[in-house]
Amino acid sequence: MIRIVIGSAQVSRDTISLTPEQSHYLFRVMRAKPGQKVEALVSGQMLYDCAVTQQPDLLLQVASHAVAVPISITLAQSLLKKDLFAQIIEKGTEAGISCFVPLVTERSIVREISAAKQQRWPAIAQEATEQCRQSRVPRIEKLSTLGRLAEFPAAVKLLLDPDGVNIMDWLAHSQPDVRDWLIAAGPEGGLSDQEISGLRSAGFTAVSLGPYIYRAENAGTVAAGILTSWAFSSLSSPGDHF
Amino acid sequence: MIRIVIGSAQVSRDTISLTPEQSHYLFRVMRAKPGQKVEALVSGQMLYDCAVTQQPDLLLQVASHAVAVPISITLAQSLLKKDLFAQIIEKGTEAGISCFVPLVTERSIVREISAAKQQRWPAIAQEATEQCRQSRVPRIEKLSTLGRLAEFPAAVKLLLDPDGVNIMDWLAHSQPDVRDWLIAAGPEGGLSDQEISGLRSAGFTAVSLGPYIYRAENAGTVAAGILTSWAFSSLSSPGDHF
Repeated sequence: MIRIVIGSAQVSRDTISLTPEQSHYLFRVMRAKPGQKVEALVSGQMLYDCAVTQQPDLLLQVASHAVAVPISITLAQSLLKKDLFAQIIEKGTEAGISCFVPLVTERSIVREISAAKQQRWPAIAQEATEQCRQSRVPRIEKLSTLGRLAEFPAAVKLLLDPDGVNIMDWLAHSQPDVRDWLIAAGPEGGLSDQEISGLRSAGFTAVSLGPYIYRAENAGTVAAGILTSWAFSSLSSPGDHF
Repeated sequence: MIRIVIGSAQVSRDTISLTPEQSHYLFRVMRAKPGQKVEALVSGQMLYDCAVTQQPDLLLQVASHAVAVPISITLAQSLLKKDLFAQIIEKGTEAGISCFVPLVTERSIVREISAAKQQRWPAIAQEATEQCRQSRVPRIEKLSTLGRLAEFPAAVKLLLDPDGVNIMDWLAHSQPDVRDWLIAAGPEGGLSDQEISGLRSAGFTAVSLGPYIYRAENAGTVAAGILTSWAFSSLSSPGDHF
C-alpha cells in the first residue's frame, strides 16, 4: 500500500489535494494509476483511505465512508479474576482495540462469563468509544480458545511474551504493510510453554514490551497503544517520501 | 552516548565480550578510548552501563552496580478522582516509571492527598515493583505544581497533549541520546491552554499517543510503556552498527 503524509489543510470534504512533491512521488516514482488505493496520513491524527482520481489536478478521492481508519486491532485475552476484563475493555478501547475475544486458556482461573458481565461489557465498550473519539464501538466476541484463533482472518498475529522480541524492533524490521493485527495475551499466570509453541506454529510472532513484566490486565492495552501510535506515525510506512 | 547491541551470551558476570564487528565499530569507527562510557543493549531485555577496559581482548566492564538501567521516567500527574492515582502508580510502575509527582493543576478536582493515601501509595509501588521485575521501587514525591516542574532536572520534558506531535515521530526525529524523561499529564478535564503554553515555554514538547483521547488514568502508563520499549529497542540509538 502506498502511503503519503499530508497536512490537515490538504483535506477538503472528501478530496485531498497534493503538493507538487507528493504528485511527483505518486505519479512519477510510484507510477500510480487512477483508481489505485493510497493511504493519506495526518501524523498522529487521521489516516484516510483514498483512491487516485482521473482529474488532471491530481486529487485523491477519500473513500466513500468519508474518514476511514484502516486499522484493526483484535485482542484475544484470557479471562481474568474479578472484573479485570471490563477494565481491559475500557482501557484497551482508548488504545485503539477494535475487537475483544475473551479466551479460556490452560491457566485461566475464571472460565466462564456471567450473564451480568455479558450485559455490562458492551456498555463499557460503548462508553469508552464515546470518551476516546474512536469512530466505531469495538465488537466483543463470544468466549473462545487459543485453538480457534487460527480461524481469525487477521493478517499479522502477535503473542505477548516477555521472552519475545521487542515490539518496537519487530515493527521497525518487519514493517507490516497491513494494519490488521491480532494480539494474543494470557491470564495472570501467563500462557503455558505448550500454548506458546502452539501459537508460534500457528503463525504468531512472540513480542515483548521491554524488560518489565506487565500484569495481565495492563499488557494488552500498552501493546495496542504502541501499535496505534506506530500506525498513525510516519514511521509506519517504508520509503523516503516524508 | 555510544550504544552497541549485544546478545545475552556476550555477558559474563561484570564483563561483556565483543564481536569483531563491534570492536571495529567501537575502536575504529567511534575511536573509543579506555574508560569511555558505552551502553550495551540486549534488545528488549537489558541495558548495561559499561566502560571500555584497557585489556587487549577488548572487553567492556559493566559498571560497579552490576546491571544498570540508565533510564529514568518521572510522571508528573494531576491528582484524580476516587483512588485513580493509585491505579496509575500500579500500572505506571510496570511500564517503567521511576518517579511519580502528584500535581494540583487548574482543573484538578482532588486537591490534596489524604493521610490514608499517603500511607497506601508507597506500598502499591513496592508491590508493583516486585511483580514487574523492576530493579528499583519508584519514588513518590510530595504534592507539587506545574510551576515547580521547571526545577526538575530531567533532560527531556514531554507534555501529553492530544494536539501534540505523535510520540513515535518525535522519538524517531529527535533521537534523544539521554533517557531521562519527565512527562507532565493533566487531570480528567485536561490541562488549560494557559498551562500548556506555560509548559511549552518551560521547554516541554507536546506529544500525542495517536488519534484517540485516553482517560487521564491511562495516558501516562501508555506513554511510559512506549518510552520504555523504545529505550530497550535497537531503534533508540542513531547509527548503523546493528
